[in-house]
Amino acid sequence: MFCSLLITNEAVKVNGYTCKDSTQITPEDFYFKGLANIAATNTSTGSVVTGANVEKLPGLNTLGLSMSRIDYAPNGLNPPHVHPRASEIIFVLEGQLYVGFVTTAGKLIAKNLNKGDVFTFPKGLIHFQKNIANSPASVLAAFDSQLPGTQSLVASLFGALPDDILAKSFQLKHKQVKKIKLRYAPKK
Amino acid sequence: MFCSLLITNEAVKVNGYTCKDSTQITPEDFYFKGLANIAATNTSTGSVVTGANVEKLPGLNTLGLSMSRIDYAPNGLNPPHVHPRASEIIFVLEGQLYVGFVTTAGKLIAKNLNKGDVFTFPKGLIHFQKNIANSPASVLAAFDSQLPGTQSLVASLFGALPDDILAKSFQLKHKQVKKIKLRYAPKK
Amino acid sequence: MFCSLLITNEAVKVNGYTCKDSTQITPEDFYFKGLANIAATNTSTGSVVTGANVEKLPGLNTLGLSMSRIDYAPNGLNPPHVHPRASEIIFVLEGQLYVGFVTTAGKLIAKNLNKGDVFTFPKGLIHFQKNIANSPASVLAAFDSQLPGTQSLVASLFGALPDDILAKSFQLKHKQVKKIKLRYAPKK
Amino acid sequence: MFCSLLITNEAVKVNGYTCKDSTQITPEDFYFKGLANIAATNTSTGSVVTGANVEKLPGLNTLGLSMSRIDYAPNGLNPPHVHPRASEIIFVLEGQLYVGFVTTAGKLIAKNLNKGDVFTFPKGLIHFQKNIANSPASVLAAFDSQLPGTQSLVASLFGALPDDILAKSFQLKHKQVKKIKLRYAPKK
Amino acid sequence: MFCSLLITNEAVKVNGYTCKDSTQITPEDFYFKGLANIAATNTSTGSVVTGANVEKLPGLNTLGLSMSRIDYAPNGLNPPHVHPRASEIIFVLEGQLYVGFVTTAGKLIAKNLNKGDVFTFPKGLIHFQKNIANSPASVLAAFDSQLPGTQSLVASLFGALPDDILAKSFQLKHKQVKKIKLRYAPKK
Amino acid sequence: MFCSLLITNEAVKVNGYTCKDSTQITPEDFYFKGLANIAATNTSTGSVVTGANVEKLPGLNTLGLSMSRIDYAPNGLNPPHVHPRASEIIFVLEGQLYVGFVTTAGKLIAKNLNKGDVFTFPKGLIHFQKNIANSPASVLAAFDSQLPGTQSLVASLFGALPDDILAKSFQLKHKQVKKIKLRYAPKK
Repeated sequence: MFCSLLITNEAVKVNGYTCKDSTQITPEDFYFKGLANIAATNTSTGSVVTGANVEKLPGLNTLGLSMSRIDYAPNGLNPPHVHPRASEIIFVLEGQLYVGFVTTAGKLIAKNLNKGDVFTFPKGLIHFQKNIANSPASVLAAFDSQLPGTQSLVASLFGALPDDILAKSFQLKHKQVKKIKLRYAPKK
Repeated sequence: MFCSLLITNEAVKVNGYTCKDSTQITPEDFYFKGLANIAATNTSTGSVVTGANVEKLPGLNTLGLSMSRIDYAPNGLNPPHVHPRASEIIFVLEGQLYVGFVTTAGKLIAKNLNKGDVFTFPKGLIHFQKNIANSPASVLAAFDSQLPGTQSLVASLFGALPDDILAKSFQLKHKQVKKIKLRYAPKK
Repeated sequence: MFCSLLITNEAVKVNGYTCKDSTQITPEDFYFKGLANIAATNTSTGSVVTGANVEKLPGLNTLGLSMSRIDYAPNGLNPPHVHPRASEIIFVLEGQLYVGFVTTAGKLIAKNLNKGDVFTFPKGLIHFQKNIANSPASVLAAFDSQLPGTQSLVASLFGALPDDILAKSFQLKHKQVKKIKLRYAPKK
Repeated sequence: MFCSLLITNEAVKVNGYTCKDSTQITPEDFYFKGLANIAATNTSTGSVVTGANVEKLPGLNTLGLSMSRIDYAPNGLNPPHVHPRASEIIFVLEGQLYVGFVTTAGKLIAKNLNKGDVFTFPKGLIHFQKNIANSPASVLAAFDSQLPGTQSLVASLFGALPDDILAKSFQLKHKQVKKIKLRYAPKK
Repeated sequence: MFCSLLITNEAVKVNGYTCKDSTQITPEDFYFKGLANIAATNTSTGSVVTGANVEKLPGLNTLGLSMSRIDYAPNGLNPPHVHPRASEIIFVLEGQLYVGFVTTAGKLIAKNLNKGDVFTFPKGLIHFQKNIANSPASVLAAFDSQLPGTQSLVASLFGALPDDILAKSFQLKHKQVKKIKLRYAPKK
Repeated sequence: MFCSLLITNEAVKVNGYTCKDSTQITPEDFYFKGLANIAATNTSTGSVVTGANVEKLPGLNTLGLSMSRIDYAPNGLNPPHVHPRASEIIFVLEGQLYVGFVTTAGKLIAKNLNKGDVFTFPKGLIHFQKNIANSPASVLAAFDSQLPGTQSLVASLFGALPDDILAKSFQLKHKQVKKIKLRYAPKK
């Protein structure tokens, strides 16, 4: 089904999000201005992702796509992550980046990108982008899902998994795992 | 199926496009630089669409998405059109645009956009973008299809349909239809 | 999910439409008699579409298909239109028609049909049917969507778009646009 | 993917069927006249199904739908069957029929239909149509699959399964099974 | 959409089943212990199916799969049936079985299986499993649907259809149909 | 499309894998015995995954599901990984396991399982299983994809990514990264 075709007397929920009757929709439902500006990139990784998905742009419900803007401090990194149900395609708005993904066969597919370049990351595969210049960089990303979801790998692993699973997975001593956990999430 | 998971001894065709074995893929398969520059916009409508779809970026095969860049001369128009199987989401790279779509109930959903704004056009609906400033404008568009296709309405109608269908559809005289056809496609 | 498999204590909404519990469904939910008769075709275009979609045949919810009946006055036209998310296949119940669609490459694929002929229009492409005889005609159409939606092109363009977009798209003068708008929707 | 969008130098196979380049397609690819006439209904069941699927109408490839015509002798029966991957919607061209399907909860949903009535059978469920008049009847059926497939239940059960499976399933003696098999397929 | 990505203030229904907010989900939502034990197989057919679908394992909602356990008495039979919208793959936990399906061309594809063997039944096709040993057997089945549904053919045919449809379908006399109906459902 | 419906004169490729004509298929195409035995678990992690996917069971092509068997040494671990396009459901054949997944909100959903228990891992999310007993364990897993693919996280990260990306992602010194890489893949 397709929200924009609905003819109902009331708003209904489809996919867990509201579908307005087609006579009630307004241009604002299909509009978002939150990607216009560079976000503050003084984070631990030097990168910030700002989403334009169905939670911020309600008209995206049932449309099958969404966008994000990613801003990078000089040498900032958007660390390795996966989107559970979306492929991604990026366009470099500004700067120079080293980007890549890892295939299920363990092969790195990576490339240096310049302003205006386009690159794509297949559904569900580990990928990353790194600013390789001493100036800020920005990327516009699009996804084939209205809510792609993100699983940042190091945060998910060292933020959520028990010590023994991590120690055995990384072949580290428990003390080392605790140390990384501390570095990773020192205030928690 | 998913090209990047394929393990084959030879390249095979999926969806009519090549899927390489995962050990044969290269970063270039997932990369395109053709959206980096502003295209020449001295066309009849004052707009140019440059695609980054599966035909130019072979790694998009099976990924379910693609991009386009649209450049507009001052006051240029990307005239009303539909994409047969894709929704679209746009990000304004530069300039000021008036954009909109028409619902199946015949309602116009339109808005003025500025640099950095995001807007979305639902699958299969008539939509357009018009540069409303005296300076150039550019837009980055993403689609939930590796090859969305485009049907420009006036070109399709007056370029392909017989005079009598057009005369009856637009409630015009045959002479008027021929005149528009002439204006529309004078050299053909 | 599939309505007919549901086992619930209450009616729920799926796709914005009701799914009854499988113990509550009745034959009437899967039945519609509204396509049995020829509709009055004294309309401006000389054609009338009568739908048998999920809004009239509630059992179609989640089934992925629907039907319409189209009746044509002598020389009546079902003017160029698109269905945003459905392919269409037609069977000529009565009469002689000239039908066709336009590909994304701008090529017309058209043919004269007689009683009993079948023709198909691919998803999202402009298509039309014209009665080419001096007697009434009727068609039965099926769609791969429970609510295909319809966007009649001339009505959507001249009914909803601003004058300047139309003038530039059709390369007409504003005065001519206003005149067509008037002809198209004189009482509005 | 969508055949009608393909731009290739050669015909390729998609879904196991040919996709022509969009410049090579002809109106004949999208046309079929084989449903125009009543088929001879002097069969063992008194019904005949004539398909208009992707095998006969090559343009249906990737479109997601197809049609069939079903003709019935007086009191003829289209015996209980399932379509493995399609829902079905029918329109009565002529005559009076008793039609129905069985839900997964074992409930019969059935109704008498007259000329012009529409009824729908959900995906994968057992259904049948019986001519309840002493005159011929005909139905037009549409499916949400380009090749729905049909599994006639009695033919599949007594034509293919071993005696002991049938005897135990129907709680019949082996002798009785052999007798039904004989009646069902006496020449085999 | 995908339940596990939802971020809502309240539980919503998707597909007719509840989606909890991702902060409210618990391990119990994704867990089921009801397949651990052999079920009592003293039924009329000598087989019992125990499901682990979305009705028993609510976390399966939107995930697209489910499981069942099937236990067989010595020589027990899981009689011919179809799943309206799921393929099935089985793993033999214990025992020896004769299993098979019938293609739409009426061909039997069947094989004897031993403990640890895997076999698969395509979507919507008639299939069965028979214990061919004098000891109990058990199978684990998986489906590509969160609620595959089951239509047991003999039960659906002789439990739901009118006598005359059955008599004509099986080419039996009414008296014989009544007798089978009696054997099949003597207490009803 | 659906391999088992195909009627062709020759084998064709669909999804990159062969579809035989329905008259050519044999029971062996739908059968696999490679999950019957416990695999040798003397690996670095103490676990081994044996797949029964479309590469080993060709009849799975177009069916939308597959299986795997996972065997664990005492205290063996199937380390954190994702399947790019499949949800997973497991049944414990033998032993006691601690299993879990991490949501996109970073929450661990984990549980101790015993023989016969069922648990499910949503599409694209990080998950793991650990044998928590001093005896071997085995699990049967099913997926809603004919070729789910696997990305083992530590192997993909430390086997494929450059040192500086890893150092920054894990907030480790380059020396430590090299040390883990060495431990992880000492012979490479």
